[in-house]
Amino acid sequence: MNAPAADTGLLSPGRAGTPVERLVDDAAWLQAMADAEAALARAQAGLGVLPRAAADLITEVVREGAPDPRVIAVASREHANPVVSLVSELTRRVAARDPAAAEHVHRGSTSQDIFDTGAMLVCRRALEAVRADLAAAAEAFAVTARAHRDTPAAARTLALHAVPTTFGLRVAGWRSLVLDAVERIDRVLDGGLPVSLGGSAGTLGGYLAYAAPGHQEDPGAFYDALVRGFARETGLAPQRLPWHALRTPVADVASALGFTAAALGKVAVDVLTLSRTEVGEVAEPSPAGRGASSAMPHKRNPVLATMVRTAALQVPVLTAGVLQCLSAEDERSPGAWHAEWQPLRECLRLTGGAAHTMVELARGLEADPVRMRANLALTGGAATSERVAAALTPRLGRPRARAVLDACSAEAAASGRPLADVLAEHPALEGAAAPDALAALCDPVRYTGAAARLVDRALDRRPREAG
Amino acid sequence: MNAPAADTGLLSPGRAGTPVERLVDDAAWLQAMADAEAALARAQAGLGVLPRAAADLITEVVREGAPDPRVIAVASREHANPVVSLVSELTRRVAARDPAAAEHVHRGSTSQDIFDTGAMLVCRRALEAVRADLAAAAEAFAVTARAHRDTPAAARTLALHAVPTTFGLRVAGWRSLVLDAVERIDRVLDGGLPVSLGGSAGTLGGYLAYAAPGHQEDPGAFYDALVRGFARETGLAPQRLPWHALRTPVADVASALGFTAAALGKVAVDVLTLSRTEVGEVAEPSPAGRGASSAMPHKRNPVLATMVRTAALQVPVLTAGVLQCLSAEDERSPGAWHAEWQPLRECLRLTGGAAHTMVELARGLEADPVRMRANLALTGGAATSERVAAALTPRLGRPRARAVLDACSAEAAASGRPLADVLAEHPALEGAAAPDALAALCDPVRYTGAAARLVDRALDRRPREAG
Amino acid sequence: MNAPAADTGLLSPGRAGTPVERLVDDAAWLQAMADAEAALARAQAGLGVLPRAAADLITEVVREGAPDPRVIAVASREHANPVVSLVSELTRRVAARDPAAAEHVHRGSTSQDIFDTGAMLVCRRALEAVRADLAAAAEAFAVTARAHRDTPAAARTLALHAVPTTFGLRVAGWRSLVLDAVERIDRVLDGGLPVSLGGSAGTLGGYLAYAAPGHQEDPGAFYDALVRGFARETGLAPQRLPWHALRTPVADVASALGFTAAALGKVAVDVLTLSRTEVGEVAEPSPAGRGASSAMPHKRNPVLATMVRTAALQVPVLTAGVLQCLSAEDERSPGAWHAEWQPLRECLRLTGGAAHTMVELARGLEADPVRMRANLALTGGAATSERVAAALTPRLGRPRARAVLDACSAEAAASGRPLADVLAEHPALEGAAAPDALAALCDPVRYTGAAARLVDRALDRRPREAG
Amino acid sequence: MNAPAADTGLLSPGRAGTPVERLVDDAAWLQAMADAEAALARAQAGLGVLPRAAADLITEVVREGAPDPRVIAVASREHANPVVSLVSELTRRVAARDPAAAEHVHRGSTSQDIFDTGAMLVCRRALEAVRADLAAAAEAFAVTARAHRDTPAAARTLALHAVPTTFGLRVAGWRSLVLDAVERIDRVLDGGLPVSLGGSAGTLGGYLAYAAPGHQEDPGAFYDALVRGFARETGLAPQRLPWHALRTPVADVASALGFTAAALGKVAVDVLTLSRTEVGEVAEPSPAGRGASSAMPHKRNPVLATMVRTAALQVPVLTAGVLQCLSAEDERSPGAWHAEWQPLRECLRLTGGAAHTMVELARGLEADPVRMRANLALTGGAATSERVAAALTPRLGRPRARAVLDACSAEAAASGRPLADVLAEHPALEGAAAPDALAALCDPVRYTGAAARLVDRALDRRPREAG
Repeated sequence: MNAPAADTGLLSPGRAGTPVERLVDDAAWLQAMADAEAALARAQAGLGVLPRAAADLITEVVREGAPDPRVIAVASREHANPVVSLVSELTRRVAARDPAAAEHVHRGSTSQDIFDTGAMLVCRRALEAVRADLAAAAEAFAVTARAHRDTPAAARTLALHAVPTTFGLRVAGWRSLVLDAVERIDRVLDGGLPVSLGGSAGTLGGYLAYAAPGHQEDPGAFYDALVRGFARETGLAPQRLPWHALRTPVADVASALGFTAAALGKVAVDVLTLSRTEVGEVAEPSPAGRGASSAMPHKRNPVLATMVRTAALQVPVLTAGVLQCLSAEDERSPGAWHAEWQPLRECLRLTGGAAHTMVELARGLEADPVRMRANLALTGGAATSERVAAALTPRLGRPRARAVLDACSAEAAASGRPLADVLAEHPALEGAAAPDALAALCDPVRYTGAAARLVDRALDRRPREAG
Repeated sequence: MNAPAADTGLLSPGRAGTPVERLVDDAAWLQAMADAEAALARAQAGLGVLPRAAADLITEVVREGAPDPRVIAVASREHANPVVSLVSELTRRVAARDPAAAEHVHRGSTSQDIFDTGAMLVCRRALEAVRADLAAAAEAFAVTARAHRDTPAAARTLALHAVPTTFGLRVAGWRSLVLDAVERIDRVLDGGLPVSLGGSAGTLGGYLAYAAPGHQEDPGAFYDALVRGFARETGLAPQRLPWHALRTPVADVASALGFTAAALGKVAVDVLTLSRTEVGEVAEPSPAGRGASSAMPHKRNPVLATMVRTAALQVPVLTAGVLQCLSAEDERSPGAWHAEWQPLRECLRLTGGAAHTMVELARGLEADPVRMRANLALTGGAATSERVAAALTPRLGRPRARAVLDACSAEAAASGRPLADVLAEHPALEGAAAPDALAALCDPVRYTGAAARLVDRALDRRPREAG
Repeated sequence: MNAPAADTGLLSPGRAGTPVERLVDDAAWLQAMADAEAALARAQAGLGVLPRAAADLITEVVREGAPDPRVIAVASREHANPVVSLVSELTRRVAARDPAAAEHVHRGSTSQDIFDTGAMLVCRRALEAVRADLAAAAEAFAVTARAHRDTPAAARTLALHAVPTTFGLRVAGWRSLVLDAVERIDRVLDGGLPVSLGGSAGTLGGYLAYAAPGHQEDPGAFYDALVRGFARETGLAPQRLPWHALRTPVADVASALGFTAAALGKVAVDVLTLSRTEVGEVAEPSPAGRGASSAMPHKRNPVLATMVRTAALQVPVLTAGVLQCLSAEDERSPGAWHAEWQPLRECLRLTGGAAHTMVELARGLEADPVRMRANLALTGGAATSERVAAALTPRLGRPRARAVLDACSAEAAASGRPLADVLAEHPALEGAAAPDALAALCDPVRYTGAAARLVDRALDRRPREAG
Repeated sequence: MNAPAADTGLLSPGRAGTPVERLVDDAAWLQAMADAEAALARAQAGLGVLPRAAADLITEVVREGAPDPRVIAVASREHANPVVSLVSELTRRVAARDPAAAEHVHRGSTSQDIFDTGAMLVCRRALEAVRADLAAAAEAFAVTARAHRDTPAAARTLALHAVPTTFGLRVAGWRSLVLDAVERIDRVLDGGLPVSLGGSAGTLGGYLAYAAPGHQEDPGAFYDALVRGFARETGLAPQRLPWHALRTPVADVASALGFTAAALGKVAVDVLTLSRTEVGEVAEPSPAGRGASSAMPHKRNPVLATMVRTAALQVPVLTAGVLQCLSAEDERSPGAWHAEWQPLRECLRLTGGAAHTMVELARGLEADPVRMRANLALTGGAATSERVAAALTPRLGRPRARAVLDACSAEAAASGRPLADVLAEHPALEGAAAPDALAALCDPVRYTGAAARLVDRALDRRPREAG
């Protein structure tokens, strides 16, 4: 049975069924918050704030599974956050086994400590999944770039054929962007997503109120120890300061995802362009049925690139939404905190789906060097006009060389004749070059510049081993 | 049991459990698309394109309920849209009863016709719900504005007390914005959300291919008739042109929602400001337990305003995301179409939740005129300095009047004495005014300008009866 | 000499030198604010609040030209808005001629009344310019759509050839979007951009303080009269309520511009796609030198479409920025008001530049029907497979018809043979159709559905005469 | 004289007249591009591609000043970018002195190499200015945080008083966010903003075409050497790959600025809240005339915080706009490249203005500890209810302790009596605590938790010396 009022991915095929979805769904988020409660109890037990047995029981109850998210979600309207109801339910469950232990659930704590710590657990797992998919896509692109290091292809600028390049260089560029995304995610993961620990208003007052007198006399040491313990129990990094209203960790995650999604979008728009019927230089992998049109039997839609681009169109504005929440009032904002939640998850989910989709695209992308060469020939040598101009400049001077090229290019385009032939007849070039030399000069296949060497340099860059 | 990978509102308490949620959830969206299929079959039957019995059977199957959205969602990755799988499943179900009828499911059609028509059905229902809630909130604000038409209160500009106003004028302003939102939604609903009918690429080619020869000879008349029939069967408006790549209807919905959410946000930030401990001029309705802090027994958090503001912070960037999709390539965009879906639903859901929340806030808001008067007194008459300056200008000239006021205001602020007393001692005013007159001039309670009359004018504006 | 720290369009070629630029530049904005001051004085004089001679002198001084915007801009940092410095300067200038008259400059007023009224004046002029350009572009598209009503061309969905359409229908769609934009701008202009009149905090207190006792006794009538007079003097519409913190007029302008820019973006991306070297179906008008590459003599870059798309990529997020400012606190927001200004101008300027550019593009666009037909042939008849499937369905049933088409389409694509030939050899079709009939069925040129009639319907829609 | 159609900051007082403005204005941008041309010539001369004397002459001409930006701006419409016109003008100027040298201007190059390299020069200078201002603000905040380490003040969550904190901790939090911004900018500067060098389509083809045969035989080595030389001549970092369509450097700058502006916004909204008439805990520095209202003599508007917040409201959506441009097609995008320019400058300018404004705010902010203490007393001890609950829990159990507190808090709030007095009379507490102890427990001034120690930990963090 489908849960009432549920969003299960129907409007977001790019992430439906990909692994990231379950890492960030309501159940995962709720479990992460419950895990944070248990970890906090254990950390407090480690400092003697509460009995070890109580912490163990809380942990046991949490491990048995979190409550039904829908029930918590609906109840959350009374507090504008889901933690109050989660705590009530956990307390009830613990109390059913040991009423005294129930006293220690959420002791001295506040909703935001639990929510934010849970969110960081969710973000870390999801970012690790995104990173692994990006690394896999980069690896696949490395193979393709190497294979097509020297495959001539038309470069395109402002929608038109420019000078030639190689297909390998294009793919090496895609890989480069993907590795940039990996680096930006690594930066977030390396910095260490932190636990959140502040108590009601970032002073740890409540935690201290329940602590032993010794701790109360040295609140700084207590703070350090509790943060360390909480970090150890959750596997997250320690925080320096309570960050209820200092939202750097969340902004960093959203920025890294905004970059990643939009960078993957570059690959997607290139694949879509190169897949166009008139271009036909690449094709998406198409297992049986994939991309079939509901109406047109002959089509195989580039659905993978479409789904990746769909994410690229959505995530950057969501990133802006999260960034804005940095401007949060007071010690906890009425709204600027809450407005982060869903957009943050949407960033994770969309980008995670896109990265996963990109792996399949990268591994299965079919390139058609014959078609690339045919397209390159479409401009009849004009793609080399820049080089020809350079070659003529010593003889004619730049302005005149340019003028000759302009005229001959125009004539070649109008007549459909090869540029080399038109040039050969131009009076200014009389005796300047043998027909063979002119043909070689105008052969786009031989004018790929440093493309192949750039592929080498690009492939020299190695992604770090996974964090 | 909770659906796998489901989002049931845990991170969006502002809409969790509100009516709009079910109007736009996966099940509703899928059912709307299935309804569109059935309506299309009936419209075609009306033109003799397919047998009435087939259309009836398709309708019957659709009315029995749509498939499990999660199954369709996951299958949608193969086509980047959910319609292909929905059509397969409908076809299977129809075929189980009458294989011949199954031939007629989705006849001549294309995914986008079904998706967009279903989306318009969903949008219409959700917009009607939003509109009803806005109208209810406006009504509640009208009551409050009338009741406090003359209640003096500090106006605030750039965070500081400005001249006095009345609380009624502030509330009349809120109502005015809410009515502006109603008008913008009405404009969308009145314009008529249209059916979508284009076939594979907006030429109706497929529909015509299955039509009788007579229809094929007059494709214009066929188009007109099919659009009219489809509109009649769905209750939507006819379209003028196929709009697969002309996304005005979707952009209009998103714009109206962006306006609405941000306008509601104005009310929310005002309520939050006025609820501040130091201000205390209003309080949210607080049924038992509402807004209780998980840590601080004494607090009653303004959770309704918080949830509304949360939506206001999220929707405008989503609107931008949808607007951008107007720049859709070709006859159907690979991505710009798909990137509308989830943000559009999120706009509906967040704004719908906010409007519903606002009704409760508007109806239960408690105002404290005593506190308003006390706050007004905080500046010791300085709030009237503008009027005093005006009164002194004929005697002293503007520059000198202003200088006297500046000096006296500063002294009053520094000493904590009432402005009238300080003024009375100023040599420039010797003999200018009786102490009583001066006190009256400096009494903020008597300096509310045209506020009360502006309330009247605001309340003269009546919302149209619901569309 | 170039002004210090000036932005003169270097980074925004799409608007540099277009008429809208001067309508919204600093000088225009400042003059509009000065005009608002003068109009306000005249309106007040009309009610006897100040001497007619003073109002005339203020008007005269204002007509002589506003101060240097840079001087005002830098001075504005002291008040976070430019009006205070403008008022000082106007007062100084008036006082130089008649010190008594100077008393009446900005009498009873507040910065926001002047700023917002000036902004509405600027918006109206700019929107009228945008509207005129849109209407001109629509007219040009009408000519093209009519001329190419029957010109067959490949429709493209998800980047691939779908069924055929006509070039005229594509252009009619562009026109339709442009007319939608005209309508949305008309709605704003028709609604009437209003004057802004509230005084210090929206109660008209200051205006009343300077009014005659009679007026003071009937503040409602005074308000009505002053609003009417101000509207008459400025040519703007009356306001219903002071709107310092009810930002509907600004949000409406930004929404209309966001729609317009993104809609123009659709035309731009289509033109870019159709201009691609491999597609070549359209070319931008290219007067000598236009679009010449700095490096490649043979290229003619589609710079007009590029500039339009550049605006389409920028405006929607700016619209979101302005929409967000609806959530303005109090009677005047510290920041949410100020954050509207530059984005609003940027929306006007970018959209105005894009609309102006689009006129040139629309008027000069060259279409190449031969190339369209050649492209249509690229899929060897497969673009008609939908129709062929329909034709075979009565004989074979839908599943088998589809299977035959899938197989034959695949073979045709692989072998490069026309679909009709492959079909003719398929056993399932033995005796089903004469080769001629099959060829006709597979001829894409004859499968444009209702395209031509849709052009007619599209052209039936007439833009209203300019507002 | 004011340049025609100029934006000189009239609508953006937050940056008008601040140093960043001139670093990013049209003149600076144009000069940076001219500098890039000269540096490229020198780098090429270093490799023997062109004569040293030509490079020197080009450098000399460039140092004499760039052309009038407005002239270039208007001419740029023909090419959708300003480089073509700049090159023409430079060529003309060089040719006027030495026609042969003019041949070498822009040799083998392309507009984007020059534009992007110039943009990186502009970004680096502007980011360094932003960084310096952030560091200065952080230093000022450190002084304030230390001075008010122990100053008790109400913490506020969801708009209401929560438990107490210290003003020093609040300011330490501001500093922490500012240092986070410094780190994110350092990351961009440390990574090294790179030169841009690709030639027409990222293959260096044109550069190689003019190189000596030796270079042409080893294009990889030539590439490495030319990049190194260009980096040395500009002071920028070498690039790894040509990045015409791999827009990481631009996205990184925009992300760092989005973070910075929104983070400064947090300080601004806090200052605005604390400046409210009813709160009055801080005041902006107010040199004579600053913040004076045009209408109300008694007001001193918090204009610095207003201007900072204005930037915070604008930059994040601009960041989204720039991020989206990562999804750039082909080897150079028609539009996605161009759409970066103005938003990137706006991000620099707004954030630079905000950072500069923040220095003044941070240095001059006046804190009022007496008012803070008075505000803290407003809730009559209820701010300590959390601690009291903790103290009662061992005696009463958590649920009963909470119930007692809820009841006593409510009564204290209703009656206006101190919480300690109400508690003392509650039967459940009979004999539980001496009145003194109860009063101490309920004294908010003594319940600041670990706040002071958190200030110490925050101040332990040192910003790195300027990069």
